Amino acid sequence: MTRFTPEDRTAPASDQPTTGSVTLINSFAVAPEQDEEFQAAWYETSRYFITQPGFISLRLHRAVSPTATHRWVNVAVWDSEASFRQAHNTDDFRRLVSQEKWQSFPSTPVLFEMVTAEGQMP
Amino acid sequence: MTRFTPEDRTAPASDQPTTGSVTLINSFAVAPEQDEEFQAAWYETSRYFITQPGFISLRLHRAVSPTATHRWVNVAVWDSEASFRQAHNTDDFRRLVSQEKWQSFPSTPVLFEMVTAEGQMP
Repeated sequence: MTRFTPEDRTAPASDQPTTGSVTLINSFAVAPEQDEEFQAAWYETSRYFITQPGFISLRLHRAVSPTATHRWVNVAVWDSEASFRQAHNTDDFRRLVSQEKWQSFPSTPVLFEMVTAEGQMP
Repeated sequence: MTRFTPEDRTAPASDQPTTGSVTLINSFAVAPEQDEEFQAAWYETSRYFITQPGFISLRLHRAVSPTATHRWVNVAVWDSEASFRQAHNTDDFRRLVSQEKWQSFPSTPVLFEMVTAEGQMP
């Protein structure tokens, strides 16, 4: 059985240097009956991230339809890709996501730059 | 060849009534060499949405890595699921997304409710 590593929990590197803030969009495959376990594991990990230098904000979302393949999506903003990388390159991060409970929740972390904005995000 | 319909461009319905604002996370599969065509088509469609009742905000993101399967992601907030549905149930919407150019860009629109928030989104 394939096991998820801390590297699987980290967005792939950029092919060109980024400037300014970056946005992580991380999608999680969670069966509805495991929502509570997922939320507890995610909350514990998020407490680590919000203390790290360069963290700006996060929004955790749950799909309104049970048919979505990835029912939970976190959108998190960091002040730079360097800060984002540093927060994913610590012993604390590796320890958190190496816990057995995380094996139940495949994730697809992808890093983005914002291109267009309209209105104020709540 | 499968053709994308306006229904393919609309997030699946919720299984339970939603209350308050909703967030659309729409991921687009775009080859890097088609980024300009995609941006032009998306911009035209976004001009329609920002005029619709209940629209709050949007953020269009491009992945920093070329390996992402869905390199463009729009995160858009609406004041209610009813407003979101109404904006996707007009002749103008169907006309826009039925244009031939949209056939090049598969999308995965999914509707979410926000569960947890930390910090201010830029």
